[in-house]
Amino acid sequence: MADVAFAFGESIYGQKKLGGTMSIEEALAGFAIAPVTGAGAREMMRLSLFDWAACGIAGEAEPLAAILRAKALDEGGAGQASLIGGGKGPMRAAALVNGAVSHALDYDDTHFAHIGHPSVAVIPAALAMAEVKGAGLEDMIEAALIGAEGSVRVGLWLGRDHYQIGFHQTATAGAFGATLAAGRIAGLSQAAMVQALGLAATRASGLKSQFGTMGKPYNAGIAAETGIEAADLAGRGFTSSPVGLSGLQGFGQTHAGIAEEDALEGLGARWRMESVSHKFHACCHGLHATIEALRGLGPSGADVERVRIRTHPRWMTVCNQPAPDTGLGAKFSYAHVVAMVLAGVDTSAIANFSDEMARRPDLVALRGLVTVEADPRLSEMEARVAVTSKDGGLREGSYDLDAPMSLEVRGEKLRRKAEGLLGAARAKALWQAVRAPDLAPLTKLLQATS
Amino acid sequence: MADVAFAFGESIYGQKKLGGTMSIEEALAGFAIAPVTGAGAREMMRLSLFDWAACGIAGEAEPLAAILRAKALDEGGAGQASLIGGGKGPMRAAALVNGAVSHALDYDDTHFAHIGHPSVAVIPAALAMAEVKGAGLEDMIEAALIGAEGSVRVGLWLGRDHYQIGFHQTATAGAFGATLAAGRIAGLSQAAMVQALGLAATRASGLKSQFGTMGKPYNAGIAAETGIEAADLAGRGFTSSPVGLSGLQGFGQTHAGIAEEDALEGLGARWRMESVSHKFHACCHGLHATIEALRGLGPSGADVERVRIRTHPRWMTVCNQPAPDTGLGAKFSYAHVVAMVLAGVDTSAIANFSDEMARRPDLVALRGLVTVEADPRLSEMEARVAVTSKDGGLREGSYDLDAPMSLEVRGEKLRRKAEGLLGAARAKALWQAVRAPDLAPLTKLLQATS
Repeated sequence: MADVAFAFGESIYGQKKLGGTMSIEEALAGFAIAPVTGAGAREMMRLSLFDWAACGIAGEAEPLAAILRAKALDEGGAGQASLIGGGKGPMRAAALVNGAVSHALDYDDTHFAHIGHPSVAVIPAALAMAEVKGAGLEDMIEAALIGAEGSVRVGLWLGRDHYQIGFHQTATAGAFGATLAAGRIAGLSQAAMVQALGLAATRASGLKSQFGTMGKPYNAGIAAETGIEAADLAGRGFTSSPVGLSGLQGFGQTHAGIAEEDALEGLGARWRMESVSHKFHACCHGLHATIEALRGLGPSGADVERVRIRTHPRWMTVCNQPAPDTGLGAKFSYAHVVAMVLAGVDTSAIANFSDEMARRPDLVALRGLVTVEADPRLSEMEARVAVTSKDGGLREGSYDLDAPMSLEVRGEKLRRKAEGLLGAARAKALWQAVRAPDLAPLTKLLQATS
Repeated sequence: MADVAFAFGESIYGQKKLGGTMSIEEALAGFAIAPVTGAGAREMMRLSLFDWAACGIAGEAEPLAAILRAKALDEGGAGQASLIGGGKGPMRAAALVNGAVSHALDYDDTHFAHIGHPSVAVIPAALAMAEVKGAGLEDMIEAALIGAEGSVRVGLWLGRDHYQIGFHQTATAGAFGATLAAGRIAGLSQAAMVQALGLAATRASGLKSQFGTMGKPYNAGIAAETGIEAADLAGRGFTSSPVGLSGLQGFGQTHAGIAEEDALEGLGARWRMESVSHKFHACCHGLHATIEALRGLGPSGADVERVRIRTHPRWMTVCNQPAPDTGLGAKFSYAHVVAMVLAGVDTSAIANFSDEMARRPDLVALRGLVTVEADPRLSEMEARVAVTSKDGGLREGSYDLDAPMSLEVRGEKLRRKAEGLLGAARAKALWQAVRAPDLAPLTKLLQATS
């Protein structure tokens, strides 16, 4: 483990320590207050911030946003931090509202290492605390990066069982990341950060069984709120368990954690957040590689005789609806998204996944040309596409979502996504806002959505 | 199951239903909005309210109270509900502060059926919502009773494993109880109450590994806050899983619940809250039977040659410190509490468990007369005491904390406890306040503690 920037114990629930050096809480806390070295990771976080804000502003039109904002405004309090959609509230309330609203469309970033959405839990906490403390944009981005990286690492430490048994990792691991982000901006000492993590451990929650209800985006809001609450209280001298995450009967042990010993390897030196994924299409992630592969071939609907898709077997039961007749169904249909691409319909625009679009006759006709096959040789992030033209030509393509993508290309794709969500003018203003010295251009855009 | 007022499924995580009648969520929701029939239970809840308020007012001097109140006042917002110690805040904030503050001394009521403190989670939620809705005292007490009963039933449904694995049942089961209490006063429909329970399911949290830190009382505050949040959001139309507690990957399945099928038996007809326990001595519950047995004998220190205690074996490693020299240690010492009783020192007064008292020479001398023996024939709630006098006389006594106690006797004991905590004048005013038609006398006392 030569590459461990912050040595930590290989303790499982506080039983053992490697060299007795550091608990995971101490390691995370040390990481959270140290200088950030990693320009690539910081720029990736800036792109995630851009994408997060675009999803949040667009998500403001969802019914849950109106409920949560009305509740926050009824409760009132100090106008510390901006609410997406207008107004200000206490930083805790802002974190809750913005976390939920930005996850409402389920279009925000994902990290596949632990299956979580890092930004929706972490950025709202970082941003709200930054507004309170008068921090600049770059400090906020660094804190968000620390928090997002921390949430992915905690997610890896908890392991896949935690997710499989039913915990919504976005919310649970996210709460610890949000705490690190908020605590960094609040200027917590390492010792206070450990206390904050202990408070997060006794507050963190969120169940996958809420999926399909407002409870799913709400979980992201809870995580962001917990980050603010834990950092705030720890800064005031509130005490908690110093091994709230890793100790006996701590969060890990009680929540099916496996205490993966390599989870923190390279912490502070290598950045898991450099491999975060962004959604460029407003549909199930299982369809994205297919869409990219097909777009690369560039066929037009009128010329196509047949389209053959090969994908990882797991997706066959997830997103292979042959003939959806609702917008929601269309989000889970190979045939339909292939038809959209062939017909030149923008798959990055949420509005295009409507009931009307699911029934559009030309798309329905094109769906009939598509066959989908499971191919166990492919990874979950790969797809292969073969298009036979009416003139007998054959074009084949493939795509791997895990393939490297330069920050420039990613940025361009995210800008096009944002244009679809917000229109060109607001997307451009947002692009500039995440490069401004202070937070005001960003918070102004977040507040002025209607 | 003829005695089930609200039929419910014997479903384990939504897999099976007895007669397909009702989920546990529907049963609890139906219970929560029905009329309360049970005068004895209501009067017991009135006593618990009295005791809760006395503990809360006394707890306001603890350091965590100042931190939480300062945070709530910094956050500000609508002055909807009273904060123990002064001021008002949004109902959510009041529930959090008052839940934590009232549990700060760990002197509040306990239900041994599921090992939880019902009142500290439920009453703050009921009270805060009652202040917002302008409910009268009797309606608030009924809601608190519903919530407390609900939390005990949910605790029984989760089962002992849930507690043993590390979940702080006061907080977890308590969150559901607080939701029922707040939801009843908010006037939720049965359907909305089910949604509120779903939101509580994805928010409920709290770990036993926080014991010994401010995190323990904070857990009670979290539960009360969750009750307000869940009821408020459900009332606004927020959606969640309708089987958030009992469904696949719901709270029960993910939190080591056993889905005990008899947990709701007799719900609405028989009241578990009629057997709630109150602490009458400011020390470990394992010492209480001994204190009561000894007090019944009435010996005076100067006459005593020797005191022999017999207790359940489990307590030998819990509260048998032979020679404590701190107030905290004295709370876990048979010898010391026996010395206090012999010397006429009030064991109900928290101030008497001080470092100074632990070292008082006459008490230290009396401690030397005490021997403690384990007796596996006794229950955990029993103790036997034998006092040998200097004149050779022998007096023997025993006590069982589980023995029935009339509401009158209990009330008198709680009044004496409150006098020790608050002084005679405030204790009397509080006794009257829990019999007033409206909440004002109670909230006035809660606010005016300093």
